Amino acid sequence: MTIPFDSLETFRAVLTSLPGPDLAAREAAAARDAVLTKPPGSLGRAEEIALWAAGWQGTDRPRITAPQVVIFAGNHGIAARGVSAFPPEVTVQMVANFDAGGAAINQLARAAGAVMDVVALDLDRPTADFTEAPAMSEADCVAALRAGWDAVRDGTDLLVAGEMGIGNTTSAAAVAAALYGGTGADWVGRGTGVDEAGLARKAAAVDAGLALHAAALTDPLEALRCLGGRELAAMAGAIAAARMARVPVLLDGFICTAAAAVLDKAVPGALDHVLAGHRGAEPGHGKLLAALGKDPILDLGLRLGEGSGAAMAIGVVKAALECHSGMATFAEAGVSGG
Amino acid sequence: MTIPFDSLETFRAVLTSLPGPDLAAREAAAARDAVLTKPPGSLGRAEEIALWAAGWQGTDRPRITAPQVVIFAGNHGIAARGVSAFPPEVTVQMVANFDAGGAAINQLARAAGAVMDVVALDLDRPTADFTEAPAMSEADCVAALRAGWDAVRDGTDLLVAGEMGIGNTTSAAAVAAALYGGTGADWVGRGTGVDEAGLARKAAAVDAGLALHAAALTDPLEALRCLGGRELAAMAGAIAAARMARVPVLLDGFICTAAAAVLDKAVPGALDHVLAGHRGAEPGHGKLLAALGKDPILDLGLRLGEGSGAAMAIGVVKAALECHSGMATFAEAGVSGG
Repeated sequence: MTIPFDSLETFRAVLTSLPGPDLAAREAAAARDAVLTKPPGSLGRAEEIALWAAGWQGTDRPRITAPQVVIFAGNHGIAARGVSAFPPEVTVQMVANFDAGGAAINQLARAAGAVMDVVALDLDRPTADFTEAPAMSEADCVAALRAGWDAVRDGTDLLVAGEMGIGNTTSAAAVAAALYGGTGADWVGRGTGVDEAGLARKAAAVDAGLALHAAALTDPLEALRCLGGRELAAMAGAIAAARMARVPVLLDGFICTAAAAVLDKAVPGALDHVLAGHRGAEPGHGKLLAALGKDPILDLGLRLGEGSGAAMAIGVVKAALECHSGMATFAEAGVSGG
Repeated sequence: MTIPFDSLETFRAVLTSLPGPDLAAREAAAARDAVLTKPPGSLGRAEEIALWAAGWQGTDRPRITAPQVVIFAGNHGIAARGVSAFPPEVTVQMVANFDAGGAAINQLARAAGAVMDVVALDLDRPTADFTEAPAMSEADCVAALRAGWDAVRDGTDLLVAGEMGIGNTTSAAAVAAALYGGTGADWVGRGTGVDEAGLARKAAAVDAGLALHAAALTDPLEALRCLGGRELAAMAGAIAAARMARVPVLLDGFICTAAAAVLDKAVPGALDHVLAGHRGAEPGHGKLLAALGKDPILDLGLRLGEGSGAAMAIGVVKAALECHSGMATFAEAGVSGG
């Protein structure tokens, strides 16, 4: 797919030209739902999921047959500030684990029947420490957005964008604070498992970043560039590309959701094609989902990233769509209506 | 499988002799979980699910390869009291729909890779109206328990027991009130969609049943016999049979959970092999799950029955087990530990 932007300004322009859902298909799916052999509304959230997918897939019988999980990996200058329980070399080691099929997301993608891709983003060139300089130049940020856009496969019918990057819950907290206000302490959490002192270092790093870049942070895309990371930008690019192709998306955890929130803040409605796959244990995640008005499908206390929570939700979405699209109507089944 | 009971008293004796989990296998799974390539605890509830399955399957690498959904259908004398939005003939019509593959549960079982069986229980012979007489004779109740026991296939490695029966939320509410106290109004809900007057009729029917059978209701199995229905007894029998074979079980909605609760009240711990697949919209369901100490895997506002919510949860359980059993350890993957 041609990538229709080469700067933050042209990316912003793309966001203003994203297509909406097929409302006629959604209406047709609602009409079908009303005559299926079940009491009205009795499938609860599963019915909403089916109608949502109908709108984006443009059919009254949506189905998921080609889900894609794509994992973006990036390294972070902020990791030098002691914000993670794991050393930075774990990022590249985990990419090798993804490639070898040994990580959690490999198993979860397979269980969901999803193809899985891994995109390592300049791991030997970490972003700048955002307490000292913008995390990324515009060129670096745009390159990461483009890498994300380019990673969405032709034919994908449900996208999960996940991430790996030691230090990236701190970046995500900084981006969230820039978008929605509050201090570092409002948005940081234990991530992979830092102790009390590590948590304080995370909050201090976020506060320092917010202060240093204050002038730029009214612009969501600048917040992404100054405080984010390559994998956050890539997830934002992938989610935007999915929207351009009317492909529905499931959000993963705190970091994925912070990246997605950049799009929503830049152009309200940019996440209409997106559902929250799960609510993670990182406390900022629930706050972000509430700010976005996204009610998660799963709530299982995960805090791994890698797209893991969203990948677990693929099965629920598939089941909801199979149900809607495969059921008999009252007339077809000869069942007396309510 | 031989059915080891032929009366309520011998069924009670069976419940006191149920096997426990393989604690060594569970310990081995916990040790494995601790060295998998993820931060400790980062898969949240998915880790608990894997350890639970490890104990019941007796291996440190549990997997679900042969899930079974079995739907029991029964008719209820209480339906004559105007407690449902649907006429009683819908029970047999829906059994035909199950057999033809057109119902929600057919799609959900297929999506979960589960075999599905349907057991219609004397549909032409409804239970007695429990406001006038015990719903079942002992012989009828035992026959239904045995039908449930007999329906669990050899080789099943995860069981979902679901139900269909016009009027059965009223039976379930009566059983729940008998087991846990309270009046009809505390336990009835809209079911398939009754109006305010129907809700009042449900509450009144439950209260009348509780009053008529008060002397018998201190015994949970008598509560099942006097107030339940054949499909409730069959689900209880199936859940007990699964336990005898150490097969884990996912509970479906209010009616399934009320049936299961009979076992827990009769012999505390009888549901240790059981997780709650979901929390349904019927208000009594959340109260029953809280009483049983079962935190649901899904919370999607379903209120269909048929095993539908539990069937949707099969995919989450499968994914959790695939993850645990397929992941690499830190040593295998050459990843630096936390």
